[in-house]
Amino acid sequence: MLREELATMPVEVEQDEAGNLWAYFKGRSTDTVVVGSHLDSVPAGGWLDGALGVMGGLEVLRSLVAAPALPQRSFALVDWADEEGARFSRSLFGSAAVAGTLDVDIVRELKDRWGNLLPDVVAEHGVVLDALDGCRTRLEHVVAYLELHIEQGPILEHEGLGIGIVTGTYGIERERLVFSGQAAHAGTMPMGMRRDSLRAMSRFALELAEIGARHGGVTTVGSVSCWPGVVTAVAGTTTCTMDMRHISADSLAAMFGEMKAAAAAAAAAEGCTVELEHIFRIPPMIFDPTLVDSVRRAVKAVEGHEFELPSGALHDASEMARVVPTAMVFTSSIAGLSHTKEEDTPDEHLAMGITAFHMAVMEALDPS
Amino acid sequence: MLREELATMPVEVEQDEAGNLWAYFKGRSTDTVVVGSHLDSVPAGGWLDGALGVMGGLEVLRSLVAAPALPQRSFALVDWADEEGARFSRSLFGSAAVAGTLDVDIVRELKDRWGNLLPDVVAEHGVVLDALDGCRTRLEHVVAYLELHIEQGPILEHEGLGIGIVTGTYGIERERLVFSGQAAHAGTMPMGMRRDSLRAMSRFALELAEIGARHGGVTTVGSVSCWPGVVTAVAGTTTCTMDMRHISADSLAAMFGEMKAAAAAAAAAEGCTVELEHIFRIPPMIFDPTLVDSVRRAVKAVEGHEFELPSGALHDASEMARVVPTAMVFTSSIAGLSHTKEEDTPDEHLAMGITAFHMAVMEALDPS
Repeated sequence: MLREELATMPVEVEQDEAGNLWAYFKGRSTDTVVVGSHLDSVPAGGWLDGALGVMGGLEVLRSLVAAPALPQRSFALVDWADEEGARFSRSLFGSAAVAGTLDVDIVRELKDRWGNLLPDVVAEHGVVLDALDGCRTRLEHVVAYLELHIEQGPILEHEGLGIGIVTGTYGIERERLVFSGQAAHAGTMPMGMRRDSLRAMSRFALELAEIGARHGGVTTVGSVSCWPGVVTAVAGTTTCTMDMRHISADSLAAMFGEMKAAAAAAAAAEGCTVELEHIFRIPPMIFDPTLVDSVRRAVKAVEGHEFELPSGALHDASEMARVVPTAMVFTSSIAGLSHTKEEDTPDEHLAMGITAFHMAVMEALDPS
Repeated sequence: MLREELATMPVEVEQDEAGNLWAYFKGRSTDTVVVGSHLDSVPAGGWLDGALGVMGGLEVLRSLVAAPALPQRSFALVDWADEEGARFSRSLFGSAAVAGTLDVDIVRELKDRWGNLLPDVVAEHGVVLDALDGCRTRLEHVVAYLELHIEQGPILEHEGLGIGIVTGTYGIERERLVFSGQAAHAGTMPMGMRRDSLRAMSRFALELAEIGARHGGVTTVGSVSCWPGVVTAVAGTTTCTMDMRHISADSLAAMFGEMKAAAAAAAAAEGCTVELEHIFRIPPMIFDPTLVDSVRRAVKAVEGHEFELPSGALHDASEMARVVPTAMVFTSSIAGLSHTKEEDTPDEHLAMGITAFHMAVMEALDPS
């Protein structure tokens, strides 16, 4: 559909080695401003997460094509491949490949739920893992990356705003915690002699919430399982996941230290032990001050404020921010809902977001 | 094996309508003392849970057969069918059928993990559900029921004792609790705006432990699951099980009331709601004072103390206590372990248990 639309326009369309789709519109110089997002979605996801940014970029392209004069800089629209990682649990595949942060040796081993290996599946779409590095040349002339996205959270709505200036994306730490006590008969083991791993996990989950609130970040225990996991037995082992995020690397490090101490204390309080298993880590990505200033002017012009917020979710912009000046515009989320069919943004907020995004991109294309 | 052993002895062997195996040895009167337990086990269970009681009863039978004179009362050894309920999750099948407390309409619907219906499976063993009531006549002349069992808990070992006097079996309340909040993105939903069902469950689990300790009973959350149950999402729904037990009906009722209040308070503290679903309920079964006195004299004679304890686990004796005078003898459990291959009792404690049990049964057979 996007390909068909692009085929009607005076642009060069190319798919890179990672499966990202690029549409190039040449300006007066080779310096290039890239805009984009992703068209893939989580299963049963909403209509805006990703698609809004690609469609917003397409609107900018249409205006460039229709304009009487070429912009100073060149323009590229990119539809990033597999942002959500819905099938292989590796998000930001396409943008990470271009940024050079995709660990091919790890990716090579990934399987989907049916046991298919990632290399076999992506090969069907013309992607060859051993040639992946080739896509890094896409950044050769890039001077800026801009992305329009739905907030996927309740902050703008809570503030009564339609759009916002994104300052960066949260750094994330994810661990799996295994609390070990002693499985026992729920009827015959006296309370004072138990080593209950579920109680240890419960203490941890409550303390973790305090850590997030105290530092102004977010912390989540989203998944728990018990062994033996029956109504008639004290849980010998309880496993949970931990996700913590902050825009400040120092705060995130402090939270991580407090999390480890809280886990040890919760285990000790119930006569249990705890082991941590690393899942995922990404540092905070602070967007480019000059490009964020440009977004600020656009938001000010469109909605009359300078409200800034960090992004709690990762975006392709997180990968781009590692290697090129990057900024983002957010539109509000109704009820903060995302990754669900109910995901939506009021029409007037969508219009404001597209307009502000357009303004910021035009400023990047023709810097004064 | 038991049948072969019994075939060599001067006893009448019969299988009743519920599949229970009875061996009758006639005394001078029709008044009958029943002893027994069960030979079935949980999968990968230990060697004593159930079998000890049947073998202890067999030893009594051997001594009666070898004795020069008949006892005043008649004797019956019973091997109860399906005590553990390992296949259909309905424990105490055989003893409940004899006690008349088995709800045939519920039992008729039970399926095993392969989808086989209970009526079809028990029919292969000669059990016809519609004829089940016939087994209730087995209690016609019964004046006492005695059972020897491993404690399956750490109390006797903790007290440095080999055997103990059982005062009754705990009453039990089991519920499933469903805490409902709002599923949300772990990165984009601020801490202050969350309705986190896992945090509500965690508050509940910790408060439930306090309730058990405060009342001298036992309380357990043994199983937890979250939805959507992924590392990147606040849990919208968290489901857990609750098991609580006490030897006093009044205390159990008080604990149950406090549990409901604690669940509501935990849910409210996190902006969630909670629903309770009934799983199982049995009242405390207090054993017969006269028969317990007899066990007390035997334990005193064998190990020199009068240490009493309630049973935290259910036994066939729980069903018998509803309808006939009942008592039990416990032997210690090494490390309190049960329902595992490691289940064991020191040999000298087994010997003391069998001796004390024998004495108590003999006193019941020839009351002075």
